[in-house]
Order: sequence, then structure tokens, then C-alpha cells
Amino acid sequence: MLDSITSIDDVRSLDLPQLKSLVDDVRTEMIDAVSVTGGHLGAGLGVVELTVALHHVFNTPHDRIIWDVGHQAYPHKIMTGRRDRMRTLRQPNGLSGFTKRAESEFDPFGAGHSSTSISAGLGMQVASDLEGTDRNVIAVIGDGAMSAGMAYEAMNNAGALDSRLIVILNDNDMSIAPPTGAMSAYLARLISGKTFLSLRDVAKQLAYSMPRFFKEKAAKAEEFARSFVTGGTLFEELGFYYVGPIDGHNLEHMLPILKNVRDIDKGPILVHVVTQKGKGYGPAEHARDKYHGVSKFDVVTGAQVKAPSNAPSYTKVFGQSLTKEAHKDDKIVAITAAMPSGTGVDIFEKDFPTRTFDVGIAEQHAVTFAAGMACEGYKPFCAIYSTFLQRAYDQVVHDVAIQKLPVRFPIDRAGFVGADGPTHAGSFDIGFLASLPNMVVMAAADEAELVHMVATAAAYNDGPIAFRYPRGEGVGVDMPEEGVPLEIGKGRMMKDGSKVAILSFGTRLAESLIAAERLDGYGLSTSVADARFAKPLDKDMILKLAGTHEMLITIEEGVAGGFGGQVLHMLAAEGALDGALKIRSLTMPDEYTDHGKPDAMYANSMLDADGIVRTVFEALGRNINEAIEAGEIA
Amino acid sequence: MLDSITSIDDVRSLDLPQLKSLVDDVRTEMIDAVSVTGGHLGAGLGVVELTVALHHVFNTPHDRIIWDVGHQAYPHKIMTGRRDRMRTLRQPNGLSGFTKRAESEFDPFGAGHSSTSISAGLGMQVASDLEGTDRNVIAVIGDGAMSAGMAYEAMNNAGALDSRLIVILNDNDMSIAPPTGAMSAYLARLISGKTFLSLRDVAKQLAYSMPRFFKEKAAKAEEFARSFVTGGTLFEELGFYYVGPIDGHNLEHMLPILKNVRDIDKGPILVHVVTQKGKGYGPAEHARDKYHGVSKFDVVTGAQVKAPSNAPSYTKVFGQSLTKEAHKDDKIVAITAAMPSGTGVDIFEKDFPTRTFDVGIAEQHAVTFAAGMACEGYKPFCAIYSTFLQRAYDQVVHDVAIQKLPVRFPIDRAGFVGADGPTHAGSFDIGFLASLPNMVVMAAADEAELVHMVATAAAYNDGPIAFRYPRGEGVGVDMPEEGVPLEIGKGRMMKDGSKVAILSFGTRLAESLIAAERLDGYGLSTSVADARFAKPLDKDMILKLAGTHEMLITIEEGVAGGFGGQVLHMLAAEGALDGALKIRSLTMPDEYTDHGKPDAMYANSMLDADGIVRTVFEALGRNINEAIEAGEIA
Repeated sequence: MLDSITSIDDVRSLDLPQLKSLVDDVRTEMIDAVSVTGGHLGAGLGVVELTVALHHVFNTPHDRIIWDVGHQAYPHKIMTGRRDRMRTLRQPNGLSGFTKRAESEFDPFGAGHSSTSISAGLGMQVASDLEGTDRNVIAVIGDGAMSAGMAYEAMNNAGALDSRLIVILNDNDMSIAPPTGAMSAYLARLISGKTFLSLRDVAKQLAYSMPRFFKEKAAKAEEFARSFVTGGTLFEELGFYYVGPIDGHNLEHMLPILKNVRDIDKGPILVHVVTQKGKGYGPAEHARDKYHGVSKFDVVTGAQVKAPSNAPSYTKVFGQSLTKEAHKDDKIVAITAAMPSGTGVDIFEKDFPTRTFDVGIAEQHAVTFAAGMACEGYKPFCAIYSTFLQRAYDQVVHDVAIQKLPVRFPIDRAGFVGADGPTHAGSFDIGFLASLPNMVVMAAADEAELVHMVATAAAYNDGPIAFRYPRGEGVGVDMPEEGVPLEIGKGRMMKDGSKVAILSFGTRLAESLIAAERLDGYGLSTSVADARFAKPLDKDMILKLAGTHEMLITIEEGVAGGFGGQVLHMLAAEGALDGALKIRSLTMPDEYTDHGKPDAMYANSMLDADGIVRTVFEALGRNINEAIEAGEIA
Repeated sequence: MLDSITSIDDVRSLDLPQLKSLVDDVRTEMIDAVSVTGGHLGAGLGVVELTVALHHVFNTPHDRIIWDVGHQAYPHKIMTGRRDRMRTLRQPNGLSGFTKRAESEFDPFGAGHSSTSISAGLGMQVASDLEGTDRNVIAVIGDGAMSAGMAYEAMNNAGALDSRLIVILNDNDMSIAPPTGAMSAYLARLISGKTFLSLRDVAKQLAYSMPRFFKEKAAKAEEFARSFVTGGTLFEELGFYYVGPIDGHNLEHMLPILKNVRDIDKGPILVHVVTQKGKGYGPAEHARDKYHGVSKFDVVTGAQVKAPSNAPSYTKVFGQSLTKEAHKDDKIVAITAAMPSGTGVDIFEKDFPTRTFDVGIAEQHAVTFAAGMACEGYKPFCAIYSTFLQRAYDQVVHDVAIQKLPVRFPIDRAGFVGADGPTHAGSFDIGFLASLPNMVVMAAADEAELVHMVATAAAYNDGPIAFRYPRGEGVGVDMPEEGVPLEIGKGRMMKDGSKVAILSFGTRLAESLIAAERLDGYGLSTSVADARFAKPLDKDMILKLAGTHEMLITIEEGVAGGFGGQVLHMLAAEGALDGALKIRSLTMPDEYTDHGKPDAMYANSMLDADGIVRTVFEALGRNINEAIEAGEIA
């Protein structure tokens, strides 16, 4: 059936058996594609029927379907002209793992972070209302995403406006981790003990909510409708018409209900659809995480192919180090915003379940909750990825830094993130944190440094402290028995030279050392320092480097305005730039880098040894061509 | 009565008539103090009874009272050892206009921004639970603050934890502007047509919620309790015990209810208290904004004393300019997050009510809602203060900048804000915006420039664009008839010199010109340029300045890592720092500046003409003492 679909219009005219056949084909296609590429599997499998139903009922792309987070949109991609590229998913120059406006007119809003769809959809619906366009806007949002404040803000606003926005609550009782929070418990109560609504039930339910609409169509519906109202009062109190729960794997139920919702001239409407994550693929259905994110796998067995790793992941090192520290200090607690395994907090939780707090997808609350605990003498480690910490920036400023509260911010996924692409890159944290008074900002050059930085954060109790580390595996250095607190604001010299000084902040230290060896070979004696701190800077060390070398080069895995910016400001203030010092700052580029391979990202950004050598050659006026011809520079 | 209170313990032992007398005294004292200092009046007047009741019932400061936003805490300050300093409120070295940890042990959490109290309170309560401390934590939050996502995130988490947190919902149907949103409408429905609960009613209501607790105390209560449940299901569905509504000006009702809540070993509990903003002071009660924020005023008449102004406020210029542009372009819409008058959006709303969207205290939603409208061809101006835009940082990055959507960000209150202090200062926006790929960032040097920047933002449709301007009045320049779009990324030369170049971004241009005249007088021929853009930089102009002057000095009303940081990065990359150019960057200091007078803040930060002259003298090795002795430098 999928083979016979050449345009989305074909889907509109299919009958029920054909649609069911299409569902099977899309599911098979998706499993096969992801088995080749890896990616998000469970979420997409759960919404195959819903995806087919939406495209059958609604006039896409004129009607807008906004997939919250976007990682469940693989079936949607297969159906909207991207089937032949599915095996390029998350590969360099291939399809994005999320929805993306630049990729297709069927993706009206890009995503990656959760809980944005209702806001964006409301904006589109209001625009359509202003313009007088006859357009349906459908936001599909998971139950996990409902724990985020911005989803509530949007519902609160939508409920007050008289807009026809359709919200589909895709309730699979599972975000990445098992759900937390009162909303999740509430949704479970709505479903528990209830059979799913049939079309007839829904008609009655809607009749109750919208008696005027149904007066003409079903005069008698209202009188016996009340008994079918199954709950939903929370959404109704927020101004939504509530429909559900309905079985998200049953096209016979879904299609007529969605048609009804489409044809009703009222809003906003929330349709509560219940689905099963990983549906239709046994290994996923039976896995604890429902195969949320997978490597390449064998379709028959479900066995994932994972490349052997030479070093532990930074995430694991963090989790283990924190656990160790917590055994020595019972004031240490850990907080995660719905990412216990992604952050390594799950490792801590095994030993300290009562000292672990998963607050849901709620970064704002996570940070201020941590601030409250810090007020009472606890030592909260609030573990949030770099990109998601952006959600809590005001809380970091207003609730933590201004009050100088000792909240610890372990920042995973800092820098390039490879296949996840620009929405998940950790590009801005150095700048937005180092600009804050009272803040201490560290970056780990390797996994051993991370152990010490966890110890440093545990020991430091005078104010907020952040430490960043990248996605993926460590570099394979020897690991210390135990973390030893670092002196705040002190870097370390790694190699002494005389002409060029490389000042590295974070992960680029290994490449800096490689570059230094090569520069030495070219007769350019090179020093390498690990700054460790972007704030406070090790002024003594940096001024000494600036004063004793012909050239100083800073390097960091973040954009301009971060570590390099702080160093430049300090050197300017100290007059250290007044003379003939040549200074360069290597940073992530001023663009959103598409998903791809990390090594290529580093190379394209000059953030590898080649890039450093090139930068030095260019600044010193040396000809790089010889080195290129000799094959020493790519 | 107030005179007889020497410690908070005295308040615990007062009887009802004495407490009533104390209420009267506190109210009178507060009105008198604010009439001298100006400040937030209406909010504090509304909670005098509540404040007295809380300190009478709860064991403060061991028990924690967290005042959300903090601007309603004046009665609390009067009662907690700060009465004698009330007339220093918001004055230099005086009391803060908000709660502040450094000010008193009775302020367990500082505030300024809204909706943080439940998160902070939950953190404190959980800490108390972990420690086994017997402590009550009470978060007092307004109905307006309930529209913010972080309040919901905190409730969602509190409802899932089994913690005794007490939330007092202070429902005065009024934040700063009249309320918007479904939650507000919902609260109105809870109250409408209901008489307030008496103690007996509450006992019944609690009996319904907590039958086990009441079994011993009131065996029969449960059977007739159901009829008294007046609603509150939304909070109950989120896991709270709901009590209310109760009359927040009636101590006879409030005291026994609060005692009950204190003594119940259950939680979380939400107590819905209804108050009247401005209560007890006629002029405030009858004012449309309930005297939310006032200047000094005459206690008898309520007439406010406002200093005559020489120039229109930036806020007004923005509102008027946007309105003008919108008359020419029907795609322009305006969005505010509960600050229509503060942002000047109310001016726009008069002409374009259907094109104005007040989304409530919901900055995250505001930005992504704007992104949705931009997707559909509208030109949203999303007007949020600098400090509150921090709340929506991830949305600016993820939903706007990555997708290069043309959302306009007019940023009021950028820079120092005087009496409002550090929580309201706009210190970080240049850095956190200019570091984003795709973003255009402007700053207005004066109110005429603001007119042109509004026109620029209206005309520019290739991506996001932000423009910042300060709190308060313009500098009094001639105003253009009409805004003319500026060329993107082009600065302007204001004065040509040869030795020193001052490169100003934003408001410090006037001081730069004064400094230049003085430097000329010292024989240091000085150029002045208005950068206009922090991103993209006017590379040609800046490189030319760097190449033709002995010294280049950047100045901006923001912290290090913003405009100066971007300039330094660019100059370093271009090799323009390799030679003997002396470079300095003047920025806001690396500290949270307490509330005070703006002029003093500028002087202390070297962000005035004196500061510029000093910086130049020092960099050029000239002796400043002569100028000081001559009285030319302060």
C-alpha cells in the first residue's frame, strides 16, 4: 500500500482496509529504516495509526500538524515524501531526527525540545483566525511533555482565547523515563477502569460540552450525555473541550472522532489518545525504555549493535563520582528533569533513592527547587544538559546566582552532539553562565578531570558552581581512585614552550597537545595550559602566558562570547593586549551546525589539531601550503 | 499596638482585638512609609491581615514564609524588625523593595520575578523532611503568578511528592494588569456566587479531603462534607488538598483555618484566600491599577508627586512608534506577558485590540506563540523586559533563532534600573542574544534612534531581531516625524578624531560625546561612533577605527561577554589586536548592583564621561591627578 502512495492526497481517499494496510507498511518501513540508522524508535512506533489517521482526515500541509519534540515523526516523514531518504536519518547531509521546517512543508514547526507545540500551534491558529484562513492546526503532545510549564502556559492562554486549536494528547504513560508528577497520575486516573470511547460515546460527550452545536444534529444526545463524561475536568477548567480517552491504535475509533473534531466550529479541543510506546515491534514493546533511542539493530532479534567503547562515558563517570561523594556527605542530593539515565542520576539513585528527585520535564522548577534545598543547607546537584539548561536561565540568574546559593550544575552534552543536531548542541552555556556574577564555571578536559570537578563542586559551598562535559566517551585516561577538590580559579600548565601558548578550556585539550607537538616540530615552541575555569579566570597563569609568548590562542567547545570572550576582556582590562601579542580565539562557529559526525564538526570549526596549527601559521604569517603538501595538514 | 511589638514572638500571644488593632497600625504605617518613598503599594495593602495572621499562627522565622514576587512584603517587613527603616525603602543603602535573604532571616528566599515561591518552598519542605525537622513552609502566591509555567511545574511536582508544603493562593483578581488566561477565569468561577467559607465549612471540606485525619476529631463531619466542596478540583487533580475560598480580610475566618492547616499532618495544601488589592486606602481601592507602583504621594488625597519630565519615556516612544508602523503594515502584531502598560503595548492596543495579545505571566509561551505567528507571515513584536526575557531564553534559541523566524524583540529596561535593584536589572541580554547565530541585536542610543529601530524591526523580515533600550526618559533629542529603517549591521560615526576612538553601543553615547569633548581638550583627539548593532557588527567601521587610532574603547550598558566581547573576538580574528592598539572595554561590573540611583550606578561602573576619561588616561599612561585636582574629574 505504501508503494502506491505518490502524494499525500492519495491517503485521503483510502478506505479503512487500505488505511490499515498502510499502517502495517509504514510500521515495517520504519522498523527497517531505523534498524539501519539507529535513532528514536519507540515513540514513532506508538503513533503510526495516529499519523495515518491525521493525514487521512486533515488537509496537510495546508492544515498544520505539529509534532511536539519531533522524535516521534518518523512515520510522518515516511508518509510525506521522505520515504526514500529514511535510511539517511541522522546521517551527515541526511534527514534530521526531528521535524525541521527546512526539510519539508509538512513540518510547519521544528522541534527537538519538548512542550513547544501548543504555543506554536496557538500562534498559527490565531494567525489563521486574523487572516480569515480556514485552517486546522493540530498539536500532538505527549503526556510527559505536559509536565513542562510552557505547555501549561499555552493551555492557559488557549483556554482564554476562543481559538479552534486542536491538541492531541498522546498518552503513552512514558516519556523517556517512567513518568513523574501529579499530571501523569491524573491522566492515569482518567484512563483507569474506563473502556475507550466509541464514536457514539464521543458524540455524547461532545454534546454535553457543546450543546448548541449538537442541538441540530442530535437533539436528544444531551440528555443522556452526562453519564459519559469520564473526567477531563482539569482540561475543561482550563477552557478546553475534552474528548477521550480513545484507543490510539484503533482506526475505527479514531477516524470518525477526528472527523468530528475537524468539523466542529469550536475550540480549543483536547483529544486524549492512548497509545503504547514501541507498539507493533515485540523487542520494543517488551523493553523497559520501549527502545526510546536505539543504535542500529537486528530486526529479527532486536539486538542492538553497539560499537565497543574504549573509555567510560562522561555521563557514567559523573554518576559514579557523585555517588562516591554522596557516600561521604549526606547533604548531597541529585535532581533531574526527566532524564535520570541520560544524566547518570540513575546511578546515584540506586544508592540514594530518597536523595534523588526527578521533577519531570520542568527545568525551571528543577533549578529553583534546588535553590530552596540549598537554602536549607543541602548540596543539590541539578543535572541538566547544556541545551535544556537554557529553559531555566532565569532561575539560574534570579533564584541561584543573585542569592549566591550553592547549587551545583553538572552540565552534560556540552558542545557538539553529533547526530542529534543543532537543537541539542550545547553551544551557549559558557557564555550565559560566565557572564553571571557569583558563578563559578569549570569544564572538564577529560574524564579524570570530571571526577575532580565533581569533588570540587561537592566541596565548594560559597555559591553556585557549574561544570561542563561533552556527550559520549572519555578520552581513555587513567582514572583517579578518588576525586580531589581543585583550587577555585586555578588552571594547570600541561606543557611548557616559549613562542606559542594554547589555552584550552575543556575538551579540546587533547587536540591542543597534539597541535603543540606538531608546532614544536615546525620550530614553534608551544605551551599548553588547561584553564579549567572560565570563571573565575586564572589571571596569573593567563597573564604570564600572554607576557611570555608571541602568540596566545584560546580554544573552547562553545560559541564566541564565552571563555575566549572572558579572557579577551580580562587581557584588555589588564593592558595585556596593548603590545604585540598576537591573540586568536577558536570557538564553535556562528551558525547552527546540522547533525553529523563529531569529528567533521570539529574539523569544520577549526577545533582540532589541524585547525590550531592552521590558525597559528596564519597568525604568524607562515606558509601553510608546505605542510598541506607534506600531508601533515588535511 | 505596633509600638508594643518588640519581637515577632509578641505577635503570637495577641488576642483577636489586639491583632485587629495591629492590622490597622501596620496598614497606616505602610501607607505613610510608601507616601515618603514611593514603591509598591496596592499589593502590600491587600495582604496586611494575611501577614498578621501568618506571623501569629506560624513560628517564623523557623517556619518559612516565602512571598512570591516579594513586592507585597512591606507589611511583613514592618512586622519583622525593619519598621524603623521603612522610609529607606528602595533608597540607596536602604531596604530593598522585595524580599532579600541578606536583609533579614525572616526572608528565607529573595524574589523580584514572579512564580518562584512554590518551587523554592517545595525545596525547603523536602529538605526539612529529609532532615527530620519539624518545619512549616508557606508559599504565598498571587493569582496572576499562577499563569506562569514554573508555578505549574512546581505544583505538578509537589502534588506527586508527599510533602507538607502550604501554598496560599492570594487571589486578588489582579496582577499588575487585569488578569488574563483560563486559570484566572477558573478562579473567578470558584469564587463567583459563593459565600466565603467559615471555619465550620472548612472543617467539613477538609474532612472530605482527609477523612482519616478527621475521623478522630469529627467522626460525623464526613457525611455532610461533600456538599461543601465548592470546586477546587483542578488543584485537587494536581494532588493538592484545596481549602477555600476564604475572606483574606477577615481574621476571625483566617486564624482558625490557618491553625487547622498548620496542625494537619498532610500535604500539600492550597489555601485559596481572596483579598482586595489596595484594601483600606481609598485612593488605591478606587484606582484602576490599585496603586500597584506609586511615586511619593499625599496621604490624604492620594495625589502622586511625579517629577516633571523633559523627554518622553522610551516605553512611550516604543508604543507610539509601533502603533505608527502598524498603521502602515497590517501584519504587525504585539505580544506582552502581563505587562501591557510597562512595555507600552497598551498604546498599541488602543488602536489594534485584535492584534494585541496579553498571554499572562508566561514569557516562554509568549516567545513560541510569536514564533508560530511568524511562521504564518505575521510580524510579531514580542515585548519583554530584558530581565524577564531570561525566562524565555530557550524559546528564543530553539523556537526562534534556530528556525530563523522573524520575531521582533523590543527589550525595555535594558541596563541599570535604579530603585528596582538587581532582580530587575537588564544586564545579560546583549551577551545571551549576540551569541546566537541568526540573531540581529541593536541598542538605541536615544529615543530618536528607538523610533528608527522600531522601523528597522518592522522592515527586517529575514530572521529574529532584538533592540534594547533603557528604563526611564529619553535624553531629549529632536524626534523624527517617522522611523526610517537602518541598514542592518551599519554603525554611524558621530565625531571624528585621530588618537582615541570611543565605540558606544546603546545608551552611553551621550556620555561618550561629553568625554570626547573633554579628551579633545586634553589634546587627545577623540572619535566617537555609535555601533547601533552588536550583531552583526559593523566590521568595516570598527576595523577602520582600530586601524587609525592609538586606542579603542568600547562601552555598553551590559556585562562583560556582550558587545565588547563580540568586538574583541572579531578584532582578534582579524589580527587587529596584533599590533600596538590599546583596547579597553567598559561594561557593567561583575556584581549584582543593589538598588540605588542610576547616576551613581553609572559612576561606580565607570560608565559615564568621567569613567571614560579615567580609562583613557590610565591606558595612555597619563596622570589623572591633575584633572582631579582641577575639579574636572570626580
